[in-house]
Amino acid sequence: MIENITVLQEILDDLLLKQTEKYCQGHVADYIPALACIPPQLMGISIATIDGNTIGAGDYRHPFSIQSISKVFGLTLAMNRLGKPLWQRVTMEPSGQAFNSIIQLEWEKGIPKNPMINAGALLVSDVLVSHYSASKLAFVSYLRKLANDESIQVDCEVYQSELSHGNRNAALTYLMKSFNNIEAEVPEVLSHYFTQCAVSMSCKQLSESLLFLANKGIDPKTQSQICSKKDAHRINAILSTSGMYDQSGEFAFSVGLPAKSGVGGGIVAVVPNIGVICAWSPPLNKYGNSVVGMNLIAGLAGKLGLSIY
Amino acid sequence: MIENITVLQEILDDLLLKQTEKYCQGHVADYIPALACIPPQLMGISIATIDGNTIGAGDYRHPFSIQSISKVFGLTLAMNRLGKPLWQRVTMEPSGQAFNSIIQLEWEKGIPKNPMINAGALLVSDVLVSHYSASKLAFVSYLRKLANDESIQVDCEVYQSELSHGNRNAALTYLMKSFNNIEAEVPEVLSHYFTQCAVSMSCKQLSESLLFLANKGIDPKTQSQICSKKDAHRINAILSTSGMYDQSGEFAFSVGLPAKSGVGGGIVAVVPNIGVICAWSPPLNKYGNSVVGMNLIAGLAGKLGLSIY
Amino acid sequence: MIENITVLQEILDDLLLKQTEKYCQGHVADYIPALACIPPQLMGISIATIDGNTIGAGDYRHPFSIQSISKVFGLTLAMNRLGKPLWQRVTMEPSGQAFNSIIQLEWEKGIPKNPMINAGALLVSDVLVSHYSASKLAFVSYLRKLANDESIQVDCEVYQSELSHGNRNAALTYLMKSFNNIEAEVPEVLSHYFTQCAVSMSCKQLSESLLFLANKGIDPKTQSQICSKKDAHRINAILSTSGMYDQSGEFAFSVGLPAKSGVGGGIVAVVPNIGVICAWSPPLNKYGNSVVGMNLIAGLAGKLGLSIY
Amino acid sequence: MIENITVLQEILDDLLLKQTEKYCQGHVADYIPALACIPPQLMGISIATIDGNTIGAGDYRHPFSIQSISKVFGLTLAMNRLGKPLWQRVTMEPSGQAFNSIIQLEWEKGIPKNPMINAGALLVSDVLVSHYSASKLAFVSYLRKLANDESIQVDCEVYQSELSHGNRNAALTYLMKSFNNIEAEVPEVLSHYFTQCAVSMSCKQLSESLLFLANKGIDPKTQSQICSKKDAHRINAILSTSGMYDQSGEFAFSVGLPAKSGVGGGIVAVVPNIGVICAWSPPLNKYGNSVVGMNLIAGLAGKLGLSIY
Repeated sequence: MIENITVLQEILDDLLLKQTEKYCQGHVADYIPALACIPPQLMGISIATIDGNTIGAGDYRHPFSIQSISKVFGLTLAMNRLGKPLWQRVTMEPSGQAFNSIIQLEWEKGIPKNPMINAGALLVSDVLVSHYSASKLAFVSYLRKLANDESIQVDCEVYQSELSHGNRNAALTYLMKSFNNIEAEVPEVLSHYFTQCAVSMSCKQLSESLLFLANKGIDPKTQSQICSKKDAHRINAILSTSGMYDQSGEFAFSVGLPAKSGVGGGIVAVVPNIGVICAWSPPLNKYGNSVVGMNLIAGLAGKLGLSIY
Repeated sequence: MIENITVLQEILDDLLLKQTEKYCQGHVADYIPALACIPPQLMGISIATIDGNTIGAGDYRHPFSIQSISKVFGLTLAMNRLGKPLWQRVTMEPSGQAFNSIIQLEWEKGIPKNPMINAGALLVSDVLVSHYSASKLAFVSYLRKLANDESIQVDCEVYQSELSHGNRNAALTYLMKSFNNIEAEVPEVLSHYFTQCAVSMSCKQLSESLLFLANKGIDPKTQSQICSKKDAHRINAILSTSGMYDQSGEFAFSVGLPAKSGVGGGIVAVVPNIGVICAWSPPLNKYGNSVVGMNLIAGLAGKLGLSIY
Repeated sequence: MIENITVLQEILDDLLLKQTEKYCQGHVADYIPALACIPPQLMGISIATIDGNTIGAGDYRHPFSIQSISKVFGLTLAMNRLGKPLWQRVTMEPSGQAFNSIIQLEWEKGIPKNPMINAGALLVSDVLVSHYSASKLAFVSYLRKLANDESIQVDCEVYQSELSHGNRNAALTYLMKSFNNIEAEVPEVLSHYFTQCAVSMSCKQLSESLLFLANKGIDPKTQSQICSKKDAHRINAILSTSGMYDQSGEFAFSVGLPAKSGVGGGIVAVVPNIGVICAWSPPLNKYGNSVVGMNLIAGLAGKLGLSIY
Repeated sequence: MIENITVLQEILDDLLLKQTEKYCQGHVADYIPALACIPPQLMGISIATIDGNTIGAGDYRHPFSIQSISKVFGLTLAMNRLGKPLWQRVTMEPSGQAFNSIIQLEWEKGIPKNPMINAGALLVSDVLVSHYSASKLAFVSYLRKLANDESIQVDCEVYQSELSHGNRNAALTYLMKSFNNIEAEVPEVLSHYFTQCAVSMSCKQLSESLLFLANKGIDPKTQSQICSKKDAHRINAILSTSGMYDQSGEFAFSVGLPAKSGVGGGIVAVVPNIGVICAWSPPLNKYGNSVVGMNLIAGLAGKLGLSIY
């Protein structure tokens, strides 16, 4: 992929240039005030490669709210902690987001379809709360270690905002608890979950943090084993079928990379054995995915022929 | 993958040997008499590679009812014929099978989630019926060409059996028609669909027929372009998210290959840029996937490290 | 109720007068051409009493398509024929129409919620087709006997129109058949059902035909027992909870009479121990109930204090 | 109805005698310990008439947990307080309980189908919490006034038990709040709701308290107007279509009286213009209705010909 860094830099700059006006096609998430006020024209992209390079363009060093991208880190931690029993409490089947949420949870008796939908990530949060004495601290430390950057923080305003608009997530968690699939107290689970979501990171930090998924579970920067090779494959598989909300199938169809988006406008995409891409632009399409972010990753994947299929 | 054909042959023989008794863990499909009477202990596996080899073990030359594997061929034909407008009538999002069927179709106002579930394949059949003057004949000719084998036939007993037990498929098709998403007459659509499903092919024929999906759309045997490179990626993407019924997520998670199963006990799996695997054993698990077939493909993929993730 | 016929006649005339312009608030059913062309300004109301009087106003002698009002007659016939076993194939629980139809039928494994929704009436049609050698003829003869009027006819244009727009009803019936809850062939069931719906009757004929429901099962005109006293209570109970589509609860709440509406614009309402009201005006509200018809019955029930609650 | 009190007393005694062993056919509610320990063989029945008599048999003076019967009182209070606007926040359509709960609430965007299902009663609780400075106190005072008995109490053990097993109700309330259909804080709403449910009353107290529903809104004991005549009709209509959980249709069909049951084993039934029956026996059938309670009321209604249809 990265035969010539200068060429790649040009490609990124070029892709970004073509998107300059495209952010107007989306709408910045406005369900909480703290997200609604982000300048919509910010955009960036970065690629971190397993051989040690990171290239970026635009606002790729600008931190943003990672939101649902945190689900990838939470899942990795929970898989490490709980192992196979995790999959008795959440399955790994793809699931339309619109059609799921609380209806599917009721139908499936409190077992979420996968860890990338909210119900599944709330369940993963319950695992972390139940298995760590200070799960929020552990989560942030984990991100700092992966990004090799002690400055990563939770945005308290976003956290508070989420908490006071979290009625649907509360409903999901209480429903799972009514099926005995939540161990901790619901407010604690919600507090952990909203903390996760409220972490701020940049494209650069995110792409570097997730390199282990492109590298058989090993962080190439430190050579430490973040998860097993098999688990890296598994997480990528889940991202491929369920990482882009109700557009997961379309993204697989048209781009062909394991990816996860967040309503903060970020998208990460794993290129197995090569590296990790992260794109960011706040305005979202109707599915909750960044309009420009998707264009950037699709453009890059098309140009470089990165589809895994 | 195929560095040494003798070694691969040994691997296949060995995998098959370990499955000898495992077929007892499943149940042969019995919703129609014509399928119920297949000897459950038959099993086979074959690999066709894009460089021209086919290796097999067990009953890999024994024809069986391809059933839902026919959906892959139907989709390819319809994509060629209709192009982009196809995706206004069926989407490409993954969908739990149990949770879908008629409920999802109603919810989504007659638009099936993807072409691998029954509703989607019935819609594809409608496209074929509407665009070919003799769609059944065209379909069988297509298979014969792809497999380079004029002996391929529709099993009339299976066809009749399906037709007289096809009430649920009739319900799905009439429901889509009530939403104006079926053009032809419903009985014609059903007749085409059941004809597709009733084709008999062997593991060898199936693995060789689908090589174009592992080879950027080109049939390596004839160098003819069966579909575009992009469409080959797209079909593999759909198979990855939706090819194994309600076990699609689990199969991606644990095996990591685009695949399609049928209730006749066959499973095909595409290994991009290498070849196509087909395994067969009639007894099914509760999801409708061949127990031994899944074991064989998982074993081979694990042994050779074939996961695309 | 009918202390003074002259007074009642005045009340009816007065109620009708107040509705003269109100028909504009609704829309004539237009899913089939044969219904769409009915003049919207026609309207009528009649009351038949168990002591032998019938009073009417407006177009109360004008025949119209009885549509779903036919479900009351079909149910009575089927209860007589099948007795208790009927209730193993259809339940008697109320059911929102919008939220039900095919989703509920799937959820409940092919058992319709009650005989007033389409699925339930199709099941009742199956009972009639299976238990009468010529069920359509039997049905029309039954109506002629009840109305004491040999001129009652099936409107062939409406019948043909329904048949060619009957895909959703076909879907419902095939779905029930896939659950083994339909005995006859689906096209036969549909043909009977659409025949029922296509019968033309006037307010006068309908109110007189259903007097047995207000009179403990006995037709006061002939003293013949049409159904048992218990069954008359039961049918009224079903009409009370399920007779007005998704407005059944509201109608019970605001009017308080067992009633059944049809998309032809007719509504019948039973006043136990007193008589039967029938109102007609083609334009429907969003629930499929006649706007003016509801106003007329609500007005009369309010004026005379007819609520059963 | 009550021509001869001695005869009626004999009828009640006789009906009760026939049920002596029947309680074994049900199961006492055991989702909370406080209910599970009630002796299953207790049973009683009482009738209060609008002309001032109360007759009872068996344990008709024994207080029990009124549970969902409290929904009738809550609704009356809320209708008085809020009037018509209440019906923009909850509808009055019947609704299968099993098929509803959280799925229907999601489908209908946070608007419960009627005030007799849990979601609807939680919404009514929100109305009371929002419109009374001390809603729990107001509720209990209201019951004491209606029953003319200052000794009526909330069972604190039941209340605590409900509260700690209330996850599903919490899920329903948070879901409605996410649709902006709950004004107060969710824990407050739940606390009011569980207080309501935890009130203990006897058959005698319940039948006397609800006489206003049989008497056009007027309490015959005090001649005070508890609700309007129209509202009394309306509440009876709602009880008729929705008061007996998923057996509402069957109860209307076979008994024909407006009624409300609770999982404490109590059932009240209104006989318009005559009086109110209350029966009690803890063991429940699969729908959550008292087995013996239903038998007693059905027996009495059949014997005296009380069906309103």
